[in-house]
Amino acid sequence: MSQRPNPPRGMRDLLPSEVALRRHLLTKILDVYERYGFEQIETPLVEEIERLSGSDGGENTTLIYKVLKRGLDWPPESERDAVDLGLRYDLTVPLARFYSTHSNELLLPFKSIQTGPVFRAERPQKGRYRQFTQCDIDIIGDPSPDAEIELVTATVEALNACGLGGFSIRMNHRRILETWVNGAGFAPSQRTSVLIAMDKLDKIGLDGVRSELQTFGNVDAADRLIDTLESVATMPDWIDRVSEVFPEGTDKNAFDDLRAMEAAVRQVSDVDVKLDPSLVRGMGYYTGAIFEVQHEESSGSVGGGGRYDGMVGSMSGQDTPAVGFSIGFERLCHILEGAATKRPGRRIVLLHGPGESSNAIALTTAQLRANGSIVRREQAVKNRGAQLNRLAQAGYTHWAELKDGNMSDLQELKD
Amino acid sequence: MSQRPNPPRGMRDLLPSEVALRRHLLTKILDVYERYGFEQIETPLVEEIERLSGSDGGENTTLIYKVLKRGLDWPPESERDAVDLGLRYDLTVPLARFYSTHSNELLLPFKSIQTGPVFRAERPQKGRYRQFTQCDIDIIGDPSPDAEIELVTATVEALNACGLGGFSIRMNHRRILETWVNGAGFAPSQRTSVLIAMDKLDKIGLDGVRSELQTFGNVDAADRLIDTLESVATMPDWIDRVSEVFPEGTDKNAFDDLRAMEAAVRQVSDVDVKLDPSLVRGMGYYTGAIFEVQHEESSGSVGGGGRYDGMVGSMSGQDTPAVGFSIGFERLCHILEGAATKRPGRRIVLLHGPGESSNAIALTTAQLRANGSIVRREQAVKNRGAQLNRLAQAGYTHWAELKDGNMSDLQELKD
Repeated sequence: MSQRPNPPRGMRDLLPSEVALRRHLLTKILDVYERYGFEQIETPLVEEIERLSGSDGGENTTLIYKVLKRGLDWPPESERDAVDLGLRYDLTVPLARFYSTHSNELLLPFKSIQTGPVFRAERPQKGRYRQFTQCDIDIIGDPSPDAEIELVTATVEALNACGLGGFSIRMNHRRILETWVNGAGFAPSQRTSVLIAMDKLDKIGLDGVRSELQTFGNVDAADRLIDTLESVATMPDWIDRVSEVFPEGTDKNAFDDLRAMEAAVRQVSDVDVKLDPSLVRGMGYYTGAIFEVQHEESSGSVGGGGRYDGMVGSMSGQDTPAVGFSIGFERLCHILEGAATKRPGRRIVLLHGPGESSNAIALTTAQLRANGSIVRREQAVKNRGAQLNRLAQAGYTHWAELKDGNMSDLQELKD
Repeated sequence: MSQRPNPPRGMRDLLPSEVALRRHLLTKILDVYERYGFEQIETPLVEEIERLSGSDGGENTTLIYKVLKRGLDWPPESERDAVDLGLRYDLTVPLARFYSTHSNELLLPFKSIQTGPVFRAERPQKGRYRQFTQCDIDIIGDPSPDAEIELVTATVEALNACGLGGFSIRMNHRRILETWVNGAGFAPSQRTSVLIAMDKLDKIGLDGVRSELQTFGNVDAADRLIDTLESVATMPDWIDRVSEVFPEGTDKNAFDDLRAMEAAVRQVSDVDVKLDPSLVRGMGYYTGAIFEVQHEESSGSVGGGGRYDGMVGSMSGQDTPAVGFSIGFERLCHILEGAATKRPGRRIVLLHGPGESSNAIALTTAQLRANGSIVRREQAVKNRGAQLNRLAQAGYTHWAELKDGNMSDLQELKD
């Protein structure tokens, strides 16, 4: 027997039960988001390569799938000559482009829902795929913390509607992190690299981050930053401690906003909200509040987001505040694997011989379907018991046989 | 003001009203297909480039977007060295690959639903896009005409459920077309090129096809073929005529199958079914019955499909009959533009001043949403009339104002 072909490396197919779960969860999520006044849009799977690679998306910009220009002369001299498009690595860059293209056709502030596949050419590993689905909401044009509160509240409600339990929300603020990085003595030009290093805390621990920061040429700054992080990490009032340690450059608005968000989310939902000094998020484009969904069964986050006030303006030429929250849809599906998604009602199989007339088969199945049942037609095989077993396992509940144009009584199938 | 950025050439964004229509139609279609026992799967957007370019997909294989290998040394010597993946140009090639990968995990015969974007680097033109959505059902593992009948019946019912009127089904059979091509005197090696030329009938007319066929080096064969087509095209009994003109090599099974399909579809639906001698379909992979949905408002087809018994076997190594029907989802959306898709119920806007407390806003919107209403929160602006007008036009039906923590009575918004 020949070898079975595979999907491309790092990618995967979704079987019927997997798609059913996804549709079930997505319907729940979209229903909640729509009740918050968000509206769904779609953008192309590809964007211009300069837009993607110049997008300040941290490590993700190194993982872009690049698309060859059509009608190219070989060999092209450089990648720049060869490539004009790339597969999107998230939904935020396309959204910022979309908003810049269409802002005069939208209800402003624009409250967007986007869901669809994104692509990252990561080293394949268990549970991580090179094509995966994201599910985002964003508010463009609202600078107030009410936007963040709405995103977090809506997402908490959506995850509850999916039946996810055991999750908490972590929050931090990029301007507070910047206070630390500056206060510890790093140069402004090092800020992005420092934040990227701090973002690895979950993976490499405090000492790992310390070692990495020490390579930046300022060992004192590295130690000061990590010592502060270490000392405050377990304090419930760390947010007040930070301004004591680094009084200079402390951004009072950031502290106030973060506290207001925490209080409002607590008030309308009973989710566990934590202000977490070690939350960084990898993207370079965040400028304000950042948040993440943590789940007891998942080492990585089940969602995250934050404020990115600079990005839309860099495309539209007009300063535009923006904030977004992305559900890690793959992780959500993984945690909720096995959730019941089957629609109610009869699932009937009609068996028939090979000589049965097409007219009789078409008519009988149409009649069975008329009351809303799911009806599958199949040729009877010799081993009737095995055939019915297989169908019962696939979720069919009833069967009948068509013989010489006459249908037998409907019988129950036992799984 | 800076220039607005655009989506990539030939691609487009979908605005909220467009996405709402698509979701509405897709829900209708999937509901019908599921009642026929079809099950939804998903495959990656990319496949290995050899699988796509070697796939017998006619002109479409020349329109593939190719993806650059990661970690490439520049310059690569040839395209072959540079490219390993391509964006799928249809859903049939990925399905055949999927079936070859997973047949032992599926309920056989496998009845598949697939919907999603496909990509073709065509010359951009009005109403045609380089990324577009297809919606396919396929039956793999059933050689009987009952499979075709089921596909056509289900698709007719799905299009009816979408509210599409004024459409008809055209049917033909590749083995009948082959009878003509062979009977006229073309060599077997010319068959594919002859069929591709015949497929242009709608665009370039009988004389155009005749001229193109004459360039193949056998003017007599070209004339015989076109003369036959011309003489039978208007006869309701053309299917009987063909076997008189070309008695040799006539495939009686093909005629019988086609007639059985026509009769059975007529019996269970009141759609207009035509056996059409000029229907060819562009793909090289069809081997049996072919069909197309014609609509009075659309010059191109609104769907089509056929039997492709060779493709799955070429990947799995095991002969496997297969037949599919693809809805031209973009054309369907275009024809049904403006169909009502709005969910029922109140759509409320809560206006508030900039100084209103986040807690009060979050609590009030949560209370308004609790009975299932859609609730949008917005800062009040100076020109209240213009603001309310804009919201009414966007479909909001009610509004209230939050002031100092107190909500005013709900008032109707008039569009």
